[in-house]
Amino acid sequence: MLDLPFLPFCVLLGSLGFVCVAFVSAWCQHWRGGFALDGSAQMFNWHPVLMVTGMVVLYGAAALVYRLPPAWSGPKLPWKVLHGALALAAFALAVLGLAAVFRFHNDHGTPNMYSLHSWLGLATVLLFSCQWLAGFCAFLLPWAPAWLRALYKPVHIFFGSTILMLSMASCVSGINEKLFFSLKNGTTEYKRLPAEAVFANMLGLLILLFGVLVLGALARPSWKRPDADSPDSCQVPAPPR
Amino acid sequence: MLDLPFLPFCVLLGSLGFVCVAFVSAWCQHWRGGFALDGSAQMFNWHPVLMVTGMVVLYGAAALVYRLPPAWSGPKLPWKVLHGALALAAFALAVLGLAAVFRFHNDHGTPNMYSLHSWLGLATVLLFSCQWLAGFCAFLLPWAPAWLRALYKPVHIFFGSTILMLSMASCVSGINEKLFFSLKNGTTEYKRLPAEAVFANMLGLLILLFGVLVLGALARPSWKRPDADSPDSCQVPAPPR
Repeated sequence: MLDLPFLPFCVLLGSLGFVCVAFVSAWCQHWRGGFALDGSAQMFNWHPVLMVTGMVVLYGAAALVYRLPPAWSGPKLPWKVLHGALALAAFALAVLGLAAVFRFHNDHGTPNMYSLHSWLGLATVLLFSCQWLAGFCAFLLPWAPAWLRALYKPVHIFFGSTILMLSMASCVSGINEKLFFSLKNGTTEYKRLPAEAVFANMLGLLILLFGVLVLGALARPSWKRPDADSPDSCQVPAPPR
Repeated sequence: MLDLPFLPFCVLLGSLGFVCVAFVSAWCQHWRGGFALDGSAQMFNWHPVLMVTGMVVLYGAAALVYRLPPAWSGPKLPWKVLHGALALAAFALAVLGLAAVFRFHNDHGTPNMYSLHSWLGLATVLLFSCQWLAGFCAFLLPWAPAWLRALYKPVHIFFGSTILMLSMASCVSGINEKLFFSLKNGTTEYKRLPAEAVFANMLGLLILLFGVLVLGALARPSWKRPDADSPDSCQVPAPPR
């Protein structure tokens, strides 16, 4: 692929992640009435913002921690803690994002969990909770045996990418669904492609671009930690020789 | 990951692909009124069937050709031709699937290309057309220089997985959208989760499972052709020594 060093790529990716969060916030603020905590449609608006920020942008940042060149040498523990902490922050935002939509539905008598978007989204967050817990037990608890780490590491990596893919599909189906719900009036129908529709469609494509770039960076061999195949935790620096 | 040989996995994946095609066909036949070629809603029904069959199942089969153990030895050309032919068949079905939805929209005065699903779906098919053409020029035309093949091969592999991911997201958003369109009546509203909704939601999850398994198989190191890192085409058998 492109012969790009990781750090400039990181700046580009960080900017793109910022643009995704700015776009979803601007959509909800400018066209959907802003934010509130009262169970109204303004409470629902926290849902897209928190899910995009948590399950895509923060999740992507967490996934890429081990690709940072400073993480390649020295003790691995601080980087593991950073990886786990960013993932936990992403998970917390996702839970708040789910709480926002459940509260909105309950206050309006709308059933929960019927659309494919909701099935996929909840399955993704549940999978993420299992991934975080299993990762914590296998890689952060110091008494986890090396054979368990070696066995589980490729599974953790595989599900790490899979969860990001499922998040991307959840976001796209959710934005699509919300636009069909919201843009129903004669002059602003979705099919007339008003400014809001163009803006939110672009948000969907930007989320996909961000996710694809994260997955590409994860797959790129030259950006992997040189000892990436070792399941060893190396939580303390090697003794001087 | 699981220590599974490729061929039993292939049988499992083939069965799952068959189930996806059977599910999408049964949905359109049983709940959406069957198939026709007259621009009606029955013509639209070809769209989901052809897109799932082409852009997910056949595409997945094409992507996995080089993972078949018989493809690991002997001349590579027959496997390249099979890979290209399956991808071309997938592309042809996708074009027919697009023709079905454009014809349906045009006959009903519905605008084309306004939803995020349509933007993403068309972008995916366009990307696929570029991928096929570039793959044909670089890997099947015998006069393509080795340096070009070496340069382009990782790009082709990366976009191969990316296009499948985008197809999965397109399918999920399309099924979600179609269910909101179709299930509007009092007793069969989507939010009341009638049998059709459960069935089509499950179809969406099965498509994602199929795609994730294909991507997992592609990423698994032990299933890669031993000479996978060589950009050489090896279109004729090596001379006897």
